[in-house]
Amino acid sequence: MYRTNTCGELRIENLNQEVILAGWVQKARKMGGMIFVDLRDRYGITQLVFNQEVNGELCERASKIGREWVIQVKGKVMERSNKNPNISTGDIEIIACELNILNVSETPPFTIEEDTDGGDDLRMKYRYLDLRRNNVRSNLELRHRMAFETRSYLNGQQFLEVETPVLIGSTPEGARDFVVPSRMNPGEFYALPQSPQTFKQLLMVSGIDRYFQIVKCFRDEDLRADRQPEFTQIDCEMSFVQQEDILNMFEGLTKHLFKTVKGIDLSDFPRMSYDDAMKLYGSDKPDTRFDMKFVEIQDLTKGKDFVVFDSAEYVAAIRAEGCASYTRKQLDELTDFVKRPQIGAKGLVYVRYETDGTFKSSVDKFYSQDDLKTWAQRCNAKPGDLLLILCGTTEKTQKQLCELRLEMGSRLGLRDKSQFNCLWVVDFPLLEFDEELGRYFAKHHPFTSPKPEDIPLLDSNPGAVRANAYDMVINGVEIGGGSIRIYNSELQKKMFGILGFTEEKAQTQFGFLMNAFKFGAPPHGGIAFGLDRFVSIFAGLDSIRDCIAFPKNNSGRDVMIDAPAVLEQEQLDELNLQVALKQK
Amino acid sequence: MYRTNTCGELRIENLNQEVILAGWVQKARKMGGMIFVDLRDRYGITQLVFNQEVNGELCERASKIGREWVIQVKGKVMERSNKNPNISTGDIEIIACELNILNVSETPPFTIEEDTDGGDDLRMKYRYLDLRRNNVRSNLELRHRMAFETRSYLNGQQFLEVETPVLIGSTPEGARDFVVPSRMNPGEFYALPQSPQTFKQLLMVSGIDRYFQIVKCFRDEDLRADRQPEFTQIDCEMSFVQQEDILNMFEGLTKHLFKTVKGIDLSDFPRMSYDDAMKLYGSDKPDTRFDMKFVEIQDLTKGKDFVVFDSAEYVAAIRAEGCASYTRKQLDELTDFVKRPQIGAKGLVYVRYETDGTFKSSVDKFYSQDDLKTWAQRCNAKPGDLLLILCGTTEKTQKQLCELRLEMGSRLGLRDKSQFNCLWVVDFPLLEFDEELGRYFAKHHPFTSPKPEDIPLLDSNPGAVRANAYDMVINGVEIGGGSIRIYNSELQKKMFGILGFTEEKAQTQFGFLMNAFKFGAPPHGGIAFGLDRFVSIFAGLDSIRDCIAFPKNNSGRDVMIDAPAVLEQEQLDELNLQVALKQK
Repeated sequence: MYRTNTCGELRIENLNQEVILAGWVQKARKMGGMIFVDLRDRYGITQLVFNQEVNGELCERASKIGREWVIQVKGKVMERSNKNPNISTGDIEIIACELNILNVSETPPFTIEEDTDGGDDLRMKYRYLDLRRNNVRSNLELRHRMAFETRSYLNGQQFLEVETPVLIGSTPEGARDFVVPSRMNPGEFYALPQSPQTFKQLLMVSGIDRYFQIVKCFRDEDLRADRQPEFTQIDCEMSFVQQEDILNMFEGLTKHLFKTVKGIDLSDFPRMSYDDAMKLYGSDKPDTRFDMKFVEIQDLTKGKDFVVFDSAEYVAAIRAEGCASYTRKQLDELTDFVKRPQIGAKGLVYVRYETDGTFKSSVDKFYSQDDLKTWAQRCNAKPGDLLLILCGTTEKTQKQLCELRLEMGSRLGLRDKSQFNCLWVVDFPLLEFDEELGRYFAKHHPFTSPKPEDIPLLDSNPGAVRANAYDMVINGVEIGGGSIRIYNSELQKKMFGILGFTEEKAQTQFGFLMNAFKFGAPPHGGIAFGLDRFVSIFAGLDSIRDCIAFPKNNSGRDVMIDAPAVLEQEQLDELNLQVALKQK
Repeated sequence: MYRTNTCGELRIENLNQEVILAGWVQKARKMGGMIFVDLRDRYGITQLVFNQEVNGELCERASKIGREWVIQVKGKVMERSNKNPNISTGDIEIIACELNILNVSETPPFTIEEDTDGGDDLRMKYRYLDLRRNNVRSNLELRHRMAFETRSYLNGQQFLEVETPVLIGSTPEGARDFVVPSRMNPGEFYALPQSPQTFKQLLMVSGIDRYFQIVKCFRDEDLRADRQPEFTQIDCEMSFVQQEDILNMFEGLTKHLFKTVKGIDLSDFPRMSYDDAMKLYGSDKPDTRFDMKFVEIQDLTKGKDFVVFDSAEYVAAIRAEGCASYTRKQLDELTDFVKRPQIGAKGLVYVRYETDGTFKSSVDKFYSQDDLKTWAQRCNAKPGDLLLILCGTTEKTQKQLCELRLEMGSRLGLRDKSQFNCLWVVDFPLLEFDEELGRYFAKHHPFTSPKPEDIPLLDSNPGAVRANAYDMVINGVEIGGGSIRIYNSELQKKMFGILGFTEEKAQTQFGFLMNAFKFGAPPHGGIAFGLDRFVSIFAGLDSIRDCIAFPKNNSGRDVMIDAPAVLEQEQLDELNLQVALKQK
């Protein structure tokens, strides 16, 4: 061992001990015949002192060491005259008597500090240096801790972690599968799993009644700002359970993580139906850290010759508390915000409920003070509040109003990253109708079970059938989701029919699972959490990238190792492949 | 929840409780107006009783259920008159009052019992049914437990589990890399890691001084009997350590696993040099459950006109205790064994040390009783023992004698699967000379550090340089291996030179790691364990296959899901690929 202690553990209790430390030079500075070195490792920083008068030769050598050099120092723990309350070792320093330079370092391309001067691209290229920064490293520590506590909890609940294969088969609809040519089976390909869904269902058929796995999954899709081609799921499945059992089990897991990792006691999670979530927040993953629910006011706006509202399918308001004082400029900003192409509203109507009790709105031409008062009353507005109103077709407008609500929440400081509001969204629709293709698609996947009481609707009104499907939402982010699965062959056949599968197609795509179901499938259901997102919520990060050790960029590239890359022809030949680039 | 209890937990203490169980029908049998059903789940088997006299309708329905049907039963816990001491629930039975058939089952293609009638191929095709068998499922439980305890131990030692990427870059020498075409980067490929070696070394550069990961690795090679294209490693690395620190840490891990998982207290592991292992056992992974060390006797055999021995570079014996009574047939079997092409010996010489003190050998023509006595004495043989002797070139003969020794160990019942002999083999040679190519190769990998005291030999006698490399061997199986790495750029350059790399080639292949090493690499080293093999040793399995939930066969195929498979042209087009099968 190159050290007796880490750079984060020596205290005033260790006074006069002879110690050996090893680590990286955070900084070195000379001060009147002394050299002070901040020595850093994963655990902290300890100050070393080299004294010219005591040991000139040693001090001379110490004067040469630079930032990020790796050194080993022997010395004695002494009390600092000038204590540093900001670091845990701030009461002591090491008076060095030996110095061993283990490695030198070139000047790093950016500073290894919390506030680094390195831009994103540079940090990614030199990720191994970026990971030396406290804040980045602590994300990895958090991730380790969350994964560890997840396993502790589930192990305690009799779950078995079972590894499912990474080299699996591609499905004909697996357009976003990564594929892997097999050298031993010329012309044939494996695929990487987008999720272990079918395997975990097979494990249920096997009688492994409580399965989980923290597992890499893969999706070859154009990467939105916060997606990665490889991502990690906490994948879980249980047999002989109803929806309620799953919700309780994984609410328990989430509480355990908050308690053990962040020291936060959470109370029971509220449940909200999908319909309510859409109606009140315009989203199936509402941020419930703040209220500001949608209030529908269309009935109050009708018949006053304001054709925009009169012709709209849907008119709804949100109430921004204390914002009647918003300036014209601020209101214009909000109007611009909702008119951005990503949001796409035609315009924004506001009503200021002035502190003197009068109303001022952008539709004063059409509505009297009394009219506006009825709106304000329905919104529970008080003098000083501001109403923001959007209108249009229901679904589109709800989405727009959702964005506006989130924006107002941010502006008003209502989205505190240290506050955690957890929520179950339940009763998702089983099916989604695709207008273009004129048919239903499974909202979740074709194995999701309808609610038993809604099964009769499968024939009469499929769109109204609710599923035993659920999402866990924290602060407006979907952290996990799952469903109770169909385990009855007849019901499964019916589902395939509704989804427009021929029996043959169902067999081709899901044959081995359907076959397995013939041999005694138990009732089962499950859930999968996105670990990357779960960690980033815990860490208060805006992106999942900084809780991943070696992430890829938006083009799916690892710029540090420069992958992917072209292969040598020899290697392609071995795999019986030719690259055929399309003409542009 | 479909049950109040599992099928493995009810005891005499639960008498008269109303319970609900759910599970699979192991078997059902009628006996005089009663139907007895063995209900099985992951936790055990509980006997259910349906009584014709008490509830005829229920009994009628129960009479229809078949093997592997999934049922839910409500009933009362009663004491059995006819107790079954072989199962944990054998003191009780459930008098059923309600029966709910959750799912039917076709007749399974093989019996779901420890001794199944299903052959390997059938079991693999219906792996989800195979996994219902107690012995197969218990291997997965063992695997879970070993992985869990590995994480517990390493977490307690401040190790961080860090996920390294699965989509990485291929190296020019990565002939056995699986590759993955990137849709977003046309014509370019990722590779799947054969190990996270470079990433874990980068993490050391990052200051994550204790890293581990239980991680899937991939190798596209012709599969020997007991290899899988995807396999799982316990991958570990530490900074600021010497070899001794790594050996202690991971001997500690192994002891922890034996203690917590198998209840076995291991004493400290012996250390054996590579040279001794080859000399005494002819293998770098000796099975030390039994002694039977090699004894070199060439000097004793010379000059007696037996040209076979006289012309051999190496003559050595093993002593099979109490085997002087071996028959001609048995000796012929052994001769055939060593002459098999996989072993390749020319012949086998034996010396029987008869119980009357005389010797009988296959070389009596050349050697006197006194000659043979000197051999026996050197081998510490007693009357009743048998000496088995091979000769030839040193290395080849050692390997042959190793196989013979293992065969004799098996025949003599000295390789008890419930006994565990752990061993460190250390001081591996750094380099291996390839006679054909006329140059040195790294025995481990090019980053393995030579022993500091051997560095001067790098110039004068590279083949004699020992590495700071080590293997952990249990019962003749290499469970793990690793090394201290080079962290000094100059030494690394020298190594590349010896290995025949130009600077340019070193840069192409290991550029990003070499660059990282410029910014302050700490001294570091590590080890990786093969989890599949570790579990199979614990389970006493001959193959790793049965400790993997969904293994592939010798052609790398998953016969259950029928992967790999051909892709549709559309999907190939998306990936800019064409399949170009070679002419046979």
